[in-house]
Order: sequence, then structure tokens, then C-alpha cells
Amino acid sequence: MSPTASWSPVESAPAALAGARDLFDGPMRAAVAQLAPAVRDVACYHFGWTDADGSVRTSNSGKAVRPTLAVLSAQAVGAPAEVGVPGALAVEFVHNFSLLHDDVMDRDEERRHRPTAWTVFGNSAAILAGDALLALAFEALLDVAPERSRAAQRSLASATQHLIVGQVDDLDFEQRLDVSVEECLQMAAGKTAALMACSASIGARLAAAGADVVHALEGFGYQLGLAFQLVDDLLGIWGATASTGKPVGADLRARKQSLPVVAAMSSGTPAGAELRTLYASAALRPDADDELVARAAALVDEAGGRSWTVDESRRRLAAAHEALEGVDLEPVARDTLVQIADYVTARDH
Amino acid sequence: MSPTASWSPVESAPAALAGARDLFDGPMRAAVAQLAPAVRDVACYHFGWTDADGSVRTSNSGKAVRPTLAVLSAQAVGAPAEVGVPGALAVEFVHNFSLLHDDVMDRDEERRHRPTAWTVFGNSAAILAGDALLALAFEALLDVAPERSRAAQRSLASATQHLIVGQVDDLDFEQRLDVSVEECLQMAAGKTAALMACSASIGARLAAAGADVVHALEGFGYQLGLAFQLVDDLLGIWGATASTGKPVGADLRARKQSLPVVAAMSSGTPAGAELRTLYASAALRPDADDELVARAAALVDEAGGRSWTVDESRRRLAAAHEALEGVDLEPVARDTLVQIADYVTARDH
Repeated sequence: MSPTASWSPVESAPAALAGARDLFDGPMRAAVAQLAPAVRDVACYHFGWTDADGSVRTSNSGKAVRPTLAVLSAQAVGAPAEVGVPGALAVEFVHNFSLLHDDVMDRDEERRHRPTAWTVFGNSAAILAGDALLALAFEALLDVAPERSRAAQRSLASATQHLIVGQVDDLDFEQRLDVSVEECLQMAAGKTAALMACSASIGARLAAAGADVVHALEGFGYQLGLAFQLVDDLLGIWGATASTGKPVGADLRARKQSLPVVAAMSSGTPAGAELRTLYASAALRPDADDELVARAAALVDEAGGRSWTVDESRRRLAAAHEALEGVDLEPVARDTLVQIADYVTARDH
Repeated sequence: MSPTASWSPVESAPAALAGARDLFDGPMRAAVAQLAPAVRDVACYHFGWTDADGSVRTSNSGKAVRPTLAVLSAQAVGAPAEVGVPGALAVEFVHNFSLLHDDVMDRDEERRHRPTAWTVFGNSAAILAGDALLALAFEALLDVAPERSRAAQRSLASATQHLIVGQVDDLDFEQRLDVSVEECLQMAAGKTAALMACSASIGARLAAAGADVVHALEGFGYQLGLAFQLVDDLLGIWGATASTGKPVGADLRARKQSLPVVAAMSSGTPAGAELRTLYASAALRPDADDELVARAAALVDEAGGRSWTVDESRRRLAAAHEALEGVDLEPVARDTLVQIADYVTARDH
């Protein structure tokens, strides 16, 4: 039951994701290989390249949406895909720095169907590996022409600061039951949209594209980031374990104030009030009865939290499409960007 | 009883430190002020600019050796001091990023006579403030000519990676009693000397100085960093609380494998063996009897750990002096660098 089931499937997005990976996968592994062994091993495990014992894994490691957007954003302004590769590394390193640190702070024990790095290597090792990736992200941008590197670095630094504030807000929300929808969207803008905006424009910055084009790509990434987070929040309640890597209703068991939950609690409806009471009680917890979790999910739905989130994700995806209109972009890359946006916000595959 | 009591006092180093502060203090506070409130408040507390309740403190906040070296390294190659200021901010932000994170990992509850940031704001806030400062360090270097910024950023990134590895080693040593003097020096090179080397050369890099001069300044900073750490380790055992901000014998109570301790335990003497037995037991702990702590300190001395550390710190300081010989440097700045090196390694003031 995906909220995006009515959208038409896009066949070429997975091919584009795989194609981009071929470009940045080698440089990314080479950059990580330069880290000192103790942090490198944690990073390789976190990226899914190795198991906890250091043995090499052959399976793929996620969709890598951000680096793919980075490469496409270079192509979209007529530059070779390779121009976007340093940006691809930079955004993927910042993304994974934040995942490593967030998992420590949130005490999350599982990510991508595997134990999180801190559960395997300890808190300190996970913090230090995250630190190393953050520094490596800026290093990744130093091997390009200085003038182009600077614009990319500014964008990366700004996205990183937004990411940090998003996590501050996320932690703050855990202590509150009066979070507004606007605050929650603001948090998603920090935690997801800012780095997605950077990802979708950093290749264009590295190609020294004009301000209007960079701005359009940035707007596309920002709206896509919000759409992505909205869909992610739906999956956190109604998603199947196989695709999310989390148990059904995981976000409800964690009493997470995700967008559907906040929309429901802010609705002024009896169902919203009941949901708030449930959140305020100790009943909702990781080992809660499935029945209670199902009841909470039903309350989100009844209070309109689900439909608002579905509608908002569609509005944001439409805004992402619109952002690319009226600017001069290379047509194939532009179409691929749109297809990827549709694909990653229709995550019932 | 300072190991450096025989050195002549240097009168002008404090004046140089104060003078440099006037240059970088404003820009540093302005850069931190741009951070989002939640991380900014933690950073301001950590820097000693505010109290836990946010009220402004008027007292000075440490010697700020690293940013002073950065400014002087610009002057040493004939550039205006201002050229070194972005480098001063960058190294001070990286230094404080590492302090914030290390205190979380080491569970240290006091720094500079005040409760550490994590004890006041929590682990997550301290981690996030550290993250923000690391990103801010790279941002600080973006407002200068790109070609010069790049050399400085490379140096900063490299120092950051060394810092991280130094902390990995430090944590690793806590689990071992067979650390060699060489390993311990290697750890000090990572935790202290690498960023000091960067600090003492980053202003020259920002001034686009020649490779030989940059290399000499880097060597100066590296040797100074080691000398500094050796003296710091002596103070960690024999220093007065007033100057170290730690209780007497603090490093022994924490069973820290500092350089004098490792030198003693590696000495092959009966005193060294007794010290090792004491370290292996649970007797040495934060609330241990003063008598036991005094006994441990005496064993370090008896096994030659103290005299080796004093000698090694003098050798390293001499090597720092030598590093600046035979290269063309502006004489006043060079003299001031030497005076500061003497001053900060003679910390009985």
C-alpha cells in the first residue's frame, strides 16, 4: 500500500543509478582507503563494503542517490560526468558522517539491515570514523580547479551546518509533544533537503555553471529532499520491513515525531488527541504489542496525518519538477534527474 | 619543581600572545556567532566566552597558542599578520572540535577549571558542536584567494586526520600495558604535533610562501608540539592544580599511559616493573589515597621516566629552534616564534 502506487513506474532510473555508481565507486573506495586503518575499517563496514570481521562483501551498498545527483548535475550543465565525481564523493561522505554520528546519538541499532557501526566497534570508533569522513569530504573537493572547488565547498559547508541543526531539532523534538508541522518540515529541510539540494547542484558548481542554473538544480534537490523525507516517514509507519530495513511501525514504537504523526497530532481531531495521549504514555515502546502499534497507525490515518503526508510529498515532487523548468539544461540529464526523483519517492519497489 | 626551571624567562611571549589575540579574537567570535543557536551556545561555553546559563564571561580563555602561531607564520614570511587570521581560526576550530569530541569519549569532566561541555549540555550537543566547528574550520579558509586557500586546506585536512588517528591510539592504549615509547611518541605526534605543525605553517601557506620556508615552519611546529606534549605529561603528574586545571597526579589516578609513565614502564628497572603492577591493579583510581598516587609518581621518577621526559622535551625544543635556522624568515617574527616555543614549554608561570 504505497502512497505513490498511482505513479507510473520509471524503468531507467535504476540504470542511471547503476551507471553513475560505476563512475564514483572506485574514487570513493580509493579515498576511504587512504584513511588510517582504525577509522577506515569502521567506514568500510558502515558503507557495506566489508563485514564486521573485515571480509569483503559483494552485495551492493544502497542506492547512493546523492552522489548520483551530483554526477547528473554536472551533465545537466553540459559538462562531462567526471566533473561531478569529486562532488559525488563529498556529499556521500558528509551523508555518511551524519549517519554514523546520528546512530550514536539516537542509539539506533540497525541500519540497512545490519547492526550499526557503534554497536560493532563502539561509540568512540563510530564518532571518529564520522569525523574522518567529514574531513575527507572537504579533501575530496581539493583536487579540482581552486575557483570551482570553492563554490562547491561553500555549498557543502552550508549543507553540513544545516544537517547538524536538523539533528539538534530532531533530538529536541524527542523531549516535546507540541511540535508543529512547520517545525517538523524545517527539521526535515535540515536533515534531508539541505544536503540533497547540495548534491543536486554541486556538479554544476564544479562545472562553473551560471547562478540561475545552479539555483534551479538546488531548488530541485531541496524539494526532492522534502518529498523523499515525507515518503520515508510514511514507510517508517506503513512500509514493509524488506524495503525499509526496519520493523513495521518502527517509527511508532520509537515514538518518533515524524511528519505523519505531527500532522495527525496537530489536526485538532479526536483521533489526533488520542494519538497524543498514546505518545505521552509509556505504552508505545520497542516491545509494544503489534495491536497497539496498529492502533497508533490507524489513529495517524484517521486524523488525516497519512493523507496530508501523501499529498505534501506529491506537492514537493511537483515542485521539484517545476524547479527544472525554464532553465537551459541538457535534456537527457534533466530527464534522468526527474526520473530519479520519481523513482526514489515511489519506494514500493 | 619544573623541569624547565633552568631556562631563562621570556618576557615578550605573553605580549605576543595577547597581541595576536587582538587580531583573531573578533573574527573568531563572529564566525562562531554565525552558527545556529543550539550549537553556537555550546561552542561559546566551551571557548569560555559564556557560562552555562549563557551569561558573558570577561576572563581570558586560554593562551590560544595555535592561532598565535598561525598569525606569526604569516609575518615570518613577510606578509601582514592579517593574512594568517583565517588560518588562525581554522586551526583553533579544529583544535576545539577535537577537545569537544575527546572529552565525550574520554568521559573527562573538567577542562580549563570548568565542567566539560558534555557534562553541561549532554553528549549529543557536545558531539554536534564539535561537528559544527570542524565544518567551520574549512569554511574559515574559503574567504581567501582560492589557490592559497587550497594549500592551507590540504594541510588542515591532513592534520585533522592525524588528530583522529592520535585519539584512536590514545583510546587503544587504555586497553594495553605494553605500549612502547615509540608508539607513545607516535600518538603524541598525532594528537598534538600534527596540528601544531599545521598551525605554525598555515599563515605562510596563506601567504603563498615557498616550499622550503613552509617546510621549516612545519618542522618547527611539529617539534614544538612534541616538546609541548612532553611538558604537558610532566605537569599531568607533577604540575600544580592552579596551572594545569587538574588535580595533582591526575594522569596517574586516570592510569593514563603518558610519556613519563611509558618510559618508566619500558625501562627494565624494578621501579618500572612495580609501576606496571600498580597500573595493572585496580588500586590506582580517581579516589585513590594521595599516598598511593605519590608512590606511583616516585616510581616513575625512580625508573627514569621523569628525567627521560625532561631530556626529550629539551631535545625537541632544541630541534624546534634548529628547524628555523638556515631559512630566510622575517627576524622579529622568527624571534617571537622561538620565544613562544620557550614560553609554552616552560609552563611554571
